[in-house]
Formats: sequence, C-alpha cells, structure tokens
Amino acid sequence: MATITEIRPRYFRVPLETVLSDSMHGTITHFELCTVEVVDADGAAGVGYTVTVGRNGRAVMATLDEIAEIAAGADADRIEGLWHRLWWALHYGGRGGPTVFALAAFDVALWDLKARRAGLPLWRLLGGFDPRVPCYAGGVDLDFTTEALIAQTDANLDRGFRAIKMKVGRPRLSEDVARVAAMRAHLGEDFPLMVDANMKWTADVAIRAARALAPHNLVWLEEPTVPDDFAGHARVVREGGIPVASGENLRTLGDFRGLIEAGGVSYPEPDVTTCGGVTAFMKIAHLAEAFHLPVTSHGAHDVTVHLLAAVRNRSFLEVHGFGLDRFIADPLTIEEGLAIAPERPGHGVAFDWAALQALPG
Amino acid sequence: MATITEIRPRYFRVPLETVLSDSMHGTITHFELCTVEVVDADGAAGVGYTVTVGRNGRAVMATLDEIAEIAAGADADRIEGLWHRLWWALHYGGRGGPTVFALAAFDVALWDLKARRAGLPLWRLLGGFDPRVPCYAGGVDLDFTTEALIAQTDANLDRGFRAIKMKVGRPRLSEDVARVAAMRAHLGEDFPLMVDANMKWTADVAIRAARALAPHNLVWLEEPTVPDDFAGHARVVREGGIPVASGENLRTLGDFRGLIEAGGVSYPEPDVTTCGGVTAFMKIAHLAEAFHLPVTSHGAHDVTVHLLAAVRNRSFLEVHGFGLDRFIADPLTIEEGLAIAPERPGHGVAFDWAALQALPG
Repeated sequence: MATITEIRPRYFRVPLETVLSDSMHGTITHFELCTVEVVDADGAAGVGYTVTVGRNGRAVMATLDEIAEIAAGADADRIEGLWHRLWWALHYGGRGGPTVFALAAFDVALWDLKARRAGLPLWRLLGGFDPRVPCYAGGVDLDFTTEALIAQTDANLDRGFRAIKMKVGRPRLSEDVARVAAMRAHLGEDFPLMVDANMKWTADVAIRAARALAPHNLVWLEEPTVPDDFAGHARVVREGGIPVASGENLRTLGDFRGLIEAGGVSYPEPDVTTCGGVTAFMKIAHLAEAFHLPVTSHGAHDVTVHLLAAVRNRSFLEVHGFGLDRFIADPLTIEEGLAIAPERPGHGVAFDWAALQALPG
Repeated sequence: MATITEIRPRYFRVPLETVLSDSMHGTITHFELCTVEVVDADGAAGVGYTVTVGRNGRAVMATLDEIAEIAAGADADRIEGLWHRLWWALHYGGRGGPTVFALAAFDVALWDLKARRAGLPLWRLLGGFDPRVPCYAGGVDLDFTTEALIAQTDANLDRGFRAIKMKVGRPRLSEDVARVAAMRAHLGEDFPLMVDANMKWTADVAIRAARALAPHNLVWLEEPTVPDDFAGHARVVREGGIPVASGENLRTLGDFRGLIEAGGVSYPEPDVTTCGGVTAFMKIAHLAEAFHLPVTSHGAHDVTVHLLAAVRNRSFLEVHGFGLDRFIADPLTIEEGLAIAPERPGHGVAFDWAALQALPG
C-alpha cells in the first residue's frame, strides 16, 4: 500500500560558487533549497524539492508543514486527487507564491515515489518520448565583463553544451547589443543563442530592444516584461522580431493558458518546482502542444529532463546556473548538446544529505 | 523622523463563535490573525493585520519576518517606494499567496502610522469622500437551515443592517433557489440581497444558476466560478442576468485589471488584507472608477470602511462574519444600513492584546 506514513521537509541555505546577477533580482549570493521526503507503508520513498533566489524559503517550509498535516495517511498513488485536495485546502491564502512552491516540491516527491514503486524512470512513466533532450546552459551573468562571459561560454562548450543563454537588461541598450554581438562573433553564425531580460522592460522598450538584437539571430528573447502583462508579451511577439520565452514567474495552469491564449509566448517555460510540480508541468506541456508551441523549462534540470523527455513538443531544457551537482550523486549527463534522462527509477536525484547538512546555517 | 525602528509581527489562532461554511472552503472553525506593529524613531506607531480561513498563517508570519528584515531602518513615510522594494525583493517566491497577505498587513500598518502622524483618520487622509458608507452583513451560512438563516437575518436587521448577503452553492440548485426565495419573502421586494457562490460552479453552471435566481431581484452574484476564469466571469455577466461581484481571491492590481478588462465583473471586490494593502486597494478602486464600476470589498471592515469612505465610486462595504469585535476597542458603528468611518486618527483599530494572547494556542 502506498499509504503515506512519513513526510519530512528540510531547509538548506546554499551559497553559490560564483555571485550571480540578473536585471531584476540583483546580486544573488545564496539560494534556498527546500526538500521533502515522502515514505509510504511499504517503505518506498520519494524526494522532491524547490528552490528560491534567497527569499521566501521559510514560508515554503511553513506550508510544507501544513501539507504534511493534510496529506498524512493519504494514498500516495492517487496524486491527482491529493493535489487538488491540497490546492483547495490552501487556496484562500495560497494559489501562488510560497504555497505553490511547497505544493510543487511535494508533488515531485509523489511522482518520484510512484515511479520508483513501478521500477521506471520518470520519463518512461510519463510517456517516454525520447531520453535525449536538447539543452542549453543558462548563464546568470548580467554583470560579467565580456571577457568573463566568453570564458564562461568556453567552459560551457567544454562541458558539452551546444546552446547558450545570456542575460540582457544592462543600463544601456547599446551595452546589451555589444555583448550579444561579441557572443555571436565568438560562437559563429548558427550556434543557438538565447537572451533573457528577466522582466526588466516595458513592452515598448522590449520591442525596441528586440529589434536592436534581432540581427544577431537569437533563438528567443526571454521574459521581456513583467509576467502578468500578457498583452504586452503579445506585442513583443508580434512586433519585436524575436520569438519570446516566458513562464518562470507564472505559477498556475491558468496563468499559462492566459499568456498562451493572448499570443504572448513562443516557448512556454514552466519551472516544475514553482508551477505546482510534475502534475502541473505535464498539463502545461500538453496545453502548449494543443497550441502548437514547443515547451522549454526553467530550473531544476535534474528533474525536468524527465518531463521534456516524456513529451513530443519538447524544446531546449534549461541547465540552470543554480546547479545542485555538488549535492547529488549522479549529476545530469550532457553529450554534444543533449541532456540524457537517466534510466534509474524515479527521477534519480539522490541528495548528499551529509554535504547539505554541513552547510553553514 | 519616520525612520522605522521596530516591526513586531504576532500570530493568533482565533476560534469562531459559530462554525461557518461555504461552498468551497468547507467547515471553518478558526481563523488565523496575523498582526504587525510598526514603530518609528519618534515613537509613533501603526498596526496592520491580515486574516486567513485557517491555513497559510505560518507562511504569512515567515514572510513578515523577512519584511521586518528588509524594511528595518526605512522611511515609513515613503510607502510607495518601500512597497515596491518589498514586492521585488520577494517577487520570485512571492507575487501571490502568503507573500501578498504579509505585504498587505505591513502596508496597512504603514498607512495607519502615516495617518496617526498627520492626526487624521485614514478616510480623510486618502481623499475624504463621505464617512457614511452603505454596508451589508456577509453571512457564511451555506449549511444553516432556513430557520437559522432567517434568525441570523433578523439579528442582522436588529444590528442596523439594511442589506444582506447569503451563501449559495448547495448540492442541488433547487435548494439554493428555495433558500433565496424564503429570504426574499422574509425581507420584502426591494431589500438589497446578494448571493455568494464562492467559486463553486463552472461558467455554464453559474449561468444556469444565475438565470434561476434572477427572478428574486438580487444585487449581485458573487464569485460564480474560479478566480482566474476571466472569460467565464464575462459570460456570467453577459448571460446570467445578475450583476457579478468578484475579487476576494485576486491578489494583484494586474489580476483586477485582467478581470475588469475582460468584462468579468460588475462590482470589483478587493480585500485590503489580501490584495497588497491600502496602497493596492486604492489603485484597484481608482482602476474601477476608470471603468465606471462601483467598488465593494471583502473582509477587514474596520479598516476598509476608511477606504470606501475615501472614494466616490464606493458601493457596499462588506461587514464580514469573521468580525474582530471581541478583540478591538471600538467596533464599527452601523446606523440604518450605513457604516460610519470613525474620526480617530489612523484606521482607529486598537487590538485588545491581552484578550488575543489569552486565546488557546
């Protein structure tokens, strides 16, 4: 029986190896990692997690404690019902923010548990399209000098990446254009290069920026403006001349439907750890398919590789700068631009709890 | 100087005097009250609060602790800047849910402080339209027998109410229609009566229900469907034959813009304690005015009476079933259907901390 007998949330504050920055979150020195283990009556276990950019983690933990209370004794195998029960139990004070992060972490643990019980890797359990997923290295590098940017790029090429994303949104547009031009010159004409503005601009400024950057042949412009300006996104898609990726700051299936229906996104970009988990991510991927859109991702690449390996309309997997490689047993394998979904049961992420617990509080 | 020298959050779990219920939140036995006091360098003080339906309060408290950290030493008088600084500091893990509840409580405290420093009641500080605000008694009474509903109604008439809202969304529509018919017969033809479905229905079911209820001459149908179905709301407005109130589950100015722009609401209904505070409520009221819509409210009537007394396009103030009368010095005065905004400086809500602290944990 998959009756839930234990739910164990844990909190870690993880220093970044390099101080990172983007246009709206400023300087980032730490991220918060909120994990949750779920154990059932047969002793089977799953683990999930979510990640913040340094704030809100304690609120996520408070919500995980409430989830643990509500879900105690539930059938871990009936995820769809449990997800909605939690959604409505937490709805008035929830439906966004830390609540959805906590629900996402718990849902990832339930899917890991289910796949492990079935003896299947998550990507096979969810549909099994193709384990070899195109990926890109997501740089969080707005304040890097051009030299540092090129050095980071060369290191990424050595790691097997064949697509790269860089930040834009410097104080002057000419700086963004110069940095992108330098990267394009370094990478060659057809190398897949994306840029990410992290919501910096108004729609009109984003259109101006997109037009200035368009000659450099970019795969997409990410988050040109604030997440709830669906109409503004749609104008950037129509008038900017570069496809638009967006979604890391959307938190519900309804948010994605709104943005997609408005024509505001070319590459929907859910984050499994912030959109409500595997349950919600798969629905968003299927929604995107219904609108003939490829789906990309944000963050948590070790779990997300399974989700993009499961569906036909997958686009690039983001390999995020907040990697957990130092703290997991088998980091993601990247070969010639492809991330390989592992064959281990579940999502296959095994945390090094001792290393995490040794972090300074 | 209005430099912030102290921010003190406190958590209380408050039992309801009567067990309440609605169509989606089920049985409610307690609410959580999260308060925050702000003190400045001159010793001036303000207090704010937010309320949950029994969950998420600990996450709100965790966020209030982060707000206290970020806002320490800030100028309490420059609320607009501080609000946006907090919004962006908390954005990635925030932008909804407990984060916005916490921001709302803190913002209410800042406005209380500002008005007290100025020696003005909040409604005068914010514009001073008219202190006599039409109000209604908001029943949370879905599971009451018709007799209990009528008895509650008579008690509300004795308290001075001249408008009443009741819950709908019983398992069978015929039950809703019968209960509304009984209330209409009891109250007479022109008495302002509203109904609240608490998101129970799909848009099509809501239209069917609205048409069945329309002969009973209702002021509005509230929350006919889930908050993010803007298009569904718009169909209920157009096809149901009863004006629609909605907004207690929206959390941002952008959410309200989306719903209003879609034509999905006749009476926007922000809650000052869940939409981001006085700062956000006033912007929503002004947005509604620009669309020629009257603004109503949800919850926290002791603070909200000031906000509706400040603006021209005010509609009914909700006097909520989770009243804090037992725990504040001077509960709201209601005379012949009007709530009277007090002349005390600030919002004038003085908590009985001893009574709150005496509550069982």
